[in-house]
Amino acid sequence: MPDLTIPRAESAYSYPLLIKNLLDAPVVSNPDQEIVYRDRMRYSYRTFRERVCRLANALEKLRVKPGDTVAVMDYDSHRYLECFYAVPMLGAVLHTVNVKLSPEQILYTIDHAEDDILLVHADFLPLLAQIRGRIDTVRAMVLLQDEPVSPPEGLEFAGEYEALLAEADRHYEFRDFDENIRATTFYTTGTTGLPKGVYFSQRQLVLHTLGTMAALASAPSQGRFHTGDVYMPITPMFHVHAWGVPYIATSLGVKQVYPGRYAPDVLLDLIEKEGVTFSHCVPTILHMLLNHPDIEKRDLSRWKVLIGGSALPKALCARALELGIDLYSGYGMSETCPVLTLAQVPEAELGSDNELEIRCKTGRPLPLVDLRIVDEQMRDVPADGESVGEIVVRAPWLTQGYLKDQRNSEQLWRGGYLHTGDVACRDAKGYVKITDRIKDVIKIGGEWISSLELEDLLIQHPAVAEVAVIGDPDPKWGERPLALVVPQGELDEKALVTHLKGFIDRGLMSKQALLLKVKLVEQIDKTSVGKINKRLLREKHAGRV
Amino acid sequence: MPDLTIPRAESAYSYPLLIKNLLDAPVVSNPDQEIVYRDRMRYSYRTFRERVCRLANALEKLRVKPGDTVAVMDYDSHRYLECFYAVPMLGAVLHTVNVKLSPEQILYTIDHAEDDILLVHADFLPLLAQIRGRIDTVRAMVLLQDEPVSPPEGLEFAGEYEALLAEADRHYEFRDFDENIRATTFYTTGTTGLPKGVYFSQRQLVLHTLGTMAALASAPSQGRFHTGDVYMPITPMFHVHAWGVPYIATSLGVKQVYPGRYAPDVLLDLIEKEGVTFSHCVPTILHMLLNHPDIEKRDLSRWKVLIGGSALPKALCARALELGIDLYSGYGMSETCPVLTLAQVPEAELGSDNELEIRCKTGRPLPLVDLRIVDEQMRDVPADGESVGEIVVRAPWLTQGYLKDQRNSEQLWRGGYLHTGDVACRDAKGYVKITDRIKDVIKIGGEWISSLELEDLLIQHPAVAEVAVIGDPDPKWGERPLALVVPQGELDEKALVTHLKGFIDRGLMSKQALLLKVKLVEQIDKTSVGKINKRLLREKHAGRV
Repeated sequence: MPDLTIPRAESAYSYPLLIKNLLDAPVVSNPDQEIVYRDRMRYSYRTFRERVCRLANALEKLRVKPGDTVAVMDYDSHRYLECFYAVPMLGAVLHTVNVKLSPEQILYTIDHAEDDILLVHADFLPLLAQIRGRIDTVRAMVLLQDEPVSPPEGLEFAGEYEALLAEADRHYEFRDFDENIRATTFYTTGTTGLPKGVYFSQRQLVLHTLGTMAALASAPSQGRFHTGDVYMPITPMFHVHAWGVPYIATSLGVKQVYPGRYAPDVLLDLIEKEGVTFSHCVPTILHMLLNHPDIEKRDLSRWKVLIGGSALPKALCARALELGIDLYSGYGMSETCPVLTLAQVPEAELGSDNELEIRCKTGRPLPLVDLRIVDEQMRDVPADGESVGEIVVRAPWLTQGYLKDQRNSEQLWRGGYLHTGDVACRDAKGYVKITDRIKDVIKIGGEWISSLELEDLLIQHPAVAEVAVIGDPDPKWGERPLALVVPQGELDEKALVTHLKGFIDRGLMSKQALLLKVKLVEQIDKTSVGKINKRLLREKHAGRV
Repeated sequence: MPDLTIPRAESAYSYPLLIKNLLDAPVVSNPDQEIVYRDRMRYSYRTFRERVCRLANALEKLRVKPGDTVAVMDYDSHRYLECFYAVPMLGAVLHTVNVKLSPEQILYTIDHAEDDILLVHADFLPLLAQIRGRIDTVRAMVLLQDEPVSPPEGLEFAGEYEALLAEADRHYEFRDFDENIRATTFYTTGTTGLPKGVYFSQRQLVLHTLGTMAALASAPSQGRFHTGDVYMPITPMFHVHAWGVPYIATSLGVKQVYPGRYAPDVLLDLIEKEGVTFSHCVPTILHMLLNHPDIEKRDLSRWKVLIGGSALPKALCARALELGIDLYSGYGMSETCPVLTLAQVPEAELGSDNELEIRCKTGRPLPLVDLRIVDEQMRDVPADGESVGEIVVRAPWLTQGYLKDQRNSEQLWRGGYLHTGDVACRDAKGYVKITDRIKDVIKIGGEWISSLELEDLLIQHPAVAEVAVIGDPDPKWGERPLALVVPQGELDEKALVTHLKGFIDRGLMSKQALLLKVKLVEQIDKTSVGKINKRLLREKHAGRV
């Protein structure tokens, strides 16, 4: 085929999608807009750009060059936001260290990402002290602090963040790079194996910013994020760039509030005092805030909250709505930069019986997101609100693999679509609803049955104290459901199948559930955080009944 | 420098920014949403996608292949929207023929663009008849009609649009292309020379769609375009894709109304009957609508209108506001895809004394738009609301040259920025205000003086019947203002300079204006549309006084 690409005048500027280009328009249009860090710091966008330049100069003094990796261990702060820009703008890679991991796992991620420079908040020094002497790649550390601290013995710092910025020049001419260079890296953990590194190019971050901004802003009224809002993240900035929203907030030119370490009192105070109108968090954090003893005294009526990370429980959503909070769901994962869908409520459904349910759905795909729900042969399942399949996606902002892990990269992308491992259905209006993780689905013939739904039904039998359902390999059906039951009183398989039949007869469960096998056990194995350990249960019981 | 681009799993999908990818999400989320063509046609997004597939198959039957050019001569219609998608989705180039040009100019653009296929509305057949036999490149024509017509003798058609679609298959698997292939071409005319072809890649159109959608949607309230709106263009679809808004409207999944040929009655009826809430047009069209005898009887209180193409006069804006229309300005040109800025009113300014003025400004740059106002040495002028310079820009969606015209391409892009030829100032809040075309500016030493402002002041002298001001080359000053004056009664240079001094003393004009030279003339040369012909005046008078 002949070359059909557009001709370019020799002088024409071929515009690359770079992080630096997100910074021009908002600073020009809103130079006096505020960025706030708790009760410690407050400055303008004009100053923000200046500090980004200072940070770039300070990092260059530490010999940071394109392709180097700069790691950050901090709470949500103005400093972190400065790193979001300055590090990629130097052509370097920002490793947002997952500080929730164990010290040994953190050591693993620092080594695996080959971090060159480490910026670390004073609170994490004790953690760092546990792994000192074993960090191989880091050649300089920078101390981040809110008040003066003395580092523990054996930890050497090239300097303190504010001091390094103060002595750095406030001008920097950022150069152009290929838009496909790596900008960020973050490590995600599953229930098994070592942390896996996802990574995003500058182009991907710019496109995620534009696409998600357009989707968040373009709702008719409910749940929209616009230039008049005040933003505060309550998802850690290390976690896929706080879902990318700091880049969006900066591009919108809104007032931004960074809360440091999450403490319910501080968060609630900031929401009221700074007039925060838009946040995002996981259900657990919201639950914690809503259980604060003072909650009824707070005015949260202007607060919009995007929920992600796990399904939004209806009860939590209803409680938030009672308090005047405008709550709704979004969906994504570390591998997807992360946003894929939003569950904004259409104008016509506001106040309807469906409203609560829509807010708790997974949502509808963003522009440019090609989200399919497919069976095992990658055929689309019908959008009938019932048929389930795995969510697979294409979008311009998906990790193109796991860092230095070819096997898992190819597994993630098998068939040219990113496999989310989430099982969902889609209704006629395009709303997706996740029902299971694919590992929790029992595949009986061509049918998929939810192990979670089966557990919900079985626990309702009076003689069942605890239950976990896994798939048991079967030569005829592929899999049959195997219920591991801790009984209370007398119980046999037949009684449970009869119990299930009642639900099947009422159309609440697929009739394949009658293939249920039951094994009585003394206890159900749990993980360290108290979740049922399906992996271990499968190892112990599957194929052995 | 080592290769720092992100690694990609072999199976990973490297997502290109293609027009086809704008179509997935809205059709999935809003399959039943409507697209309306006058009172003639009404169908769903589901049907729209099907018709795009049919059109692609029909064009392939006419042997359209990637790189071919498909030209369209039509009013604003569902057919045009189908071409906006199907033609680039085949890898072909859509030439949106500027039907306002003369038949000879149209012939020139068809030849210059090397059109292969021409889709033409029945109303333009008489025009086509004038140039038949002289069109060299077109190998097949398709007839577009609203009711059955008989083409004039000597014009052969491969078929009628609806008939071709009806017999085409409704499935088409669109393949991937390089995102930098050319998608569209349009010819723009200046006051001099032949029409010049601008062109845009698929990537550029996708990025313009995302960036402009984000900017239009993210205003707090005034002037926003969102998923609950109903859209109708009143800028021709041939004119830089109706400012790109049909792509945005489709991506938002909103109801769309295409009005065919612009007739005030039809437009006003459609606004009311179809509930149109968002449009865009040039001031002249709005003026025509507001002068409709029935205007007071119409309910336009839900109508938002983006004005572009030329400055929005305050009186027109005030009149529109009286009628309840939410009016504001945007800025761009054919070379810029086109949108660069929007003059949405911030929440705090609504209802203030500044509101009207802000709505009539040029606006603030969109995300990713690097808009500078520079002097002749490409140095930024201060953002003080007074200092003027030329607007030069970088953005991801600017034409990379003029088609097959290297000299003008390099001139457009000299110094790596696209030169708009517009002279403007910027205030501290980032609002740009265009004051002149650069050709209308007199450059006296380092100062730029507006010839239009000088003309405004001079015409106020009772002995001046008509006046035009041009720059006269001067060895000391670079240029001095030369006023060509048609006198009424007695008049000399001194009287006019004294007249100007009055304004200078009151701070209304820069004192360089005192360098004014005056030449009395019998008449001022005009162009065919009645504008002062500055080019001719410069040729005749500059350097000859």
